[in-house]
Amino acid sequence: MITRELQDAIRMVQDFPKQGISFCDLTPVFKQPVLVRKMVEALVEPFRNQGITAIAGIESRGFFLAPAMALELNLPFIPIRKPGKLPASTFAQSYQLEYGMDSLEIHTDALSNRDFVMIHDDVLATGGTARAAAQLVEQCGAKVAGFTFIIELLSLNGREKIKTLPTTSLLTF
Amino acid sequence: MITRELQDAIRMVQDFPKQGISFCDLTPVFKQPVLVRKMVEALVEPFRNQGITAIAGIESRGFFLAPAMALELNLPFIPIRKPGKLPASTFAQSYQLEYGMDSLEIHTDALSNRDFVMIHDDVLATGGTARAAAQLVEQCGAKVAGFTFIIELLSLNGREKIKTLPTTSLLTF
Repeated sequence: MITRELQDAIRMVQDFPKQGISFCDLTPVFKQPVLVRKMVEALVEPFRNQGITAIAGIESRGFFLAPAMALELNLPFIPIRKPGKLPASTFAQSYQLEYGMDSLEIHTDALSNRDFVMIHDDVLATGGTARAAAQLVEQCGAKVAGFTFIIELLSLNGREKIKTLPTTSLLTF
Repeated sequence: MITRELQDAIRMVQDFPKQGISFCDLTPVFKQPVLVRKMVEALVEPFRNQGITAIAGIESRGFFLAPAMALELNLPFIPIRKPGKLPASTFAQSYQLEYGMDSLEIHTDALSNRDFVMIHDDVLATGGTARAAAQLVEQCGAKVAGFTFIIELLSLNGREKIKTLPTTSLLTF
């Protein structure tokens, strides 16, 4: 049901960010608060009563839902950000892009060895970003409980990179 | 009350993003869901029953709370993003930084002339970003209802740039 509503709300934009790519634009989804509320509930549902202690969101589109999901479960929200954005001491993790490398950071004191963390991003593509985020959580001494995504792009096989961990996505392409 | 809790939770980081600057790190605040909930409620309170139709958040730290505020009021969340991030047709607005210029974008169809919009960001500093965001809302044909910030840096006199509009901040420095 939510899958159908999401399909109807998402806008496909051709040739973004570059020629030949079809981009799933989620901004129209966020104009529908009833649908946003349903997404929050559907994404946190598998993680209720699983002992998770924090929700990490990946910059920037992971920030659209992760803080609201954290509020829903009454848990801390932990931002995982692009290099140079977090002001205090950080761990960094680089990962492969199609051409070149990118990197993510987490505050070294964001989590501890008592934490069990769900990681959220808007889209699971190649899984490189998700795996880097998991490595950052582990660098803090915490454990990863699993992942949530609004959209999963099956053709890119991102689950291969995070396969031992519970993963929820609301819509697959 | 919330002011005192915020003061206790914020971490001041010296020499970030550059030498001589003290940066208000809000990430520890987001580890406290009860405090985050109070912030959401305190920020939306002045805008209840004012006829607002959408809440816009400014990338990236404005995304930590704006979507949750939009859910609280059952309103659309509209992202105002850095250049090149929004996939569909956009309006752009540049603004002055201490050295050089920066720019923000909004989808041209994000809002219409029926919209009355509250704009949210984490910090009001010089007001350049906030004013650019207001200009983008107006480029869509919508009206700005006012602004909310977690922190207002009084010494930078940002209210000068947005002075005719209702502005709420939870903590001033």
